Amino acid sequence: MTRILGIDPGSQRTGVGIIDVDAGGRTTHVHHQPLVLLDAEDFPQRLKLLLQGLGGLIEQYRPDEVAIEKVFVGKSADSALKLGQARGTAISAVVLRDLPVHEYAAKEIKLALVGKGSAEKTQVQHMVGLMLNLKGKLQADAADALAVAITHAHVRATANRIGIDARAAWSRK
Amino acid sequence: MTRILGIDPGSQRTGVGIIDVDAGGRTTHVHHQPLVLLDAEDFPQRLKLLLQGLGGLIEQYRPDEVAIEKVFVGKSADSALKLGQARGTAISAVVLRDLPVHEYAAKEIKLALVGKGSAEKTQVQHMVGLMLNLKGKLQADAADALAVAITHAHVRATANRIGIDARAAWSRK
Repeated sequence: MTRILGIDPGSQRTGVGIIDVDAGGRTTHVHHQPLVLLDAEDFPQRLKLLLQGLGGLIEQYRPDEVAIEKVFVGKSADSALKLGQARGTAISAVVLRDLPVHEYAAKEIKLALVGKGSAEKTQVQHMVGLMLNLKGKLQADAADALAVAITHAHVRATANRIGIDARAAWSRK
Repeated sequence: MTRILGIDPGSQRTGVGIIDVDAGGRTTHVHHQPLVLLDAEDFPQRLKLLLQGLGGLIEQYRPDEVAIEKVFVGKSADSALKLGQARGTAISAVVLRDLPVHEYAAKEIKLALVGKGSAEKTQVQHMVGLMLNLKGKLQADAADALAVAITHAHVRATANRIGIDARAAWSRK
């Protein structure tokens, strides 16, 4: 069993989603929540809340691997800077604990969950609930964090399968 | 004596400058260097180099306060995102150690060092060398880091002076 932490970084709210995946690629929900950063008095303090909040969840749930969304940046350089700061801080919390970080583009996440790179964000969130058997509406950032964790679970299950097949093919020689 | 760490964040190179300032606002050079982040295999590893490099310098030089440039973002949202990630990571290294962070805009730095908010960057770097009595050409990122540290030294010296005057005025009542 491998535990995966998914992160959807944001400067106001960072989504956190944790799942377990077994050798067959089956996923189980463990935890999800948004880390709300708006209460901090200034921006460095907001990053500190993120660093400590995410660090605390890593200590508590002890994930083996981490997946983070490759953020899409729109037209505004200013919002890209803010988002970048949150993303850099989230990655800091992870690399501080020597965990491997895998990055997935929004398109890859949509492809993995809905089978279509151009799927709507709401479709992705719907599939997260379905796949993890969660009732009720998920908070959007936490759902996105679970989505990137599921994407990584699928990618690593495929890699494992290829690895096993390769070894099986080799042993038949 | 107060030790100030100045940081000029960048995703390829982050400048670090450390100075001491006495009660009268006189500054002395302690250390400066660029942290070169290009050797890392991927972006999270690059941020890890920054987090550990800056963390190591904080442990070694034990600054009391930290000053960081409020970065200017140009037209490109993509470069703003990269810069933001470096800045978020640099602030993470600082807040992890519970040090206060002060932010200064480029204009404030130019005003403090050259007396003119529209001064050229090369003028600022020249003034850094002059004020700290450093021989030879300074590496640009390290010079910018020393510049933000000097700016904070001046601002806090002024604040101290006003504080002392205010107390003196109060005691005369």
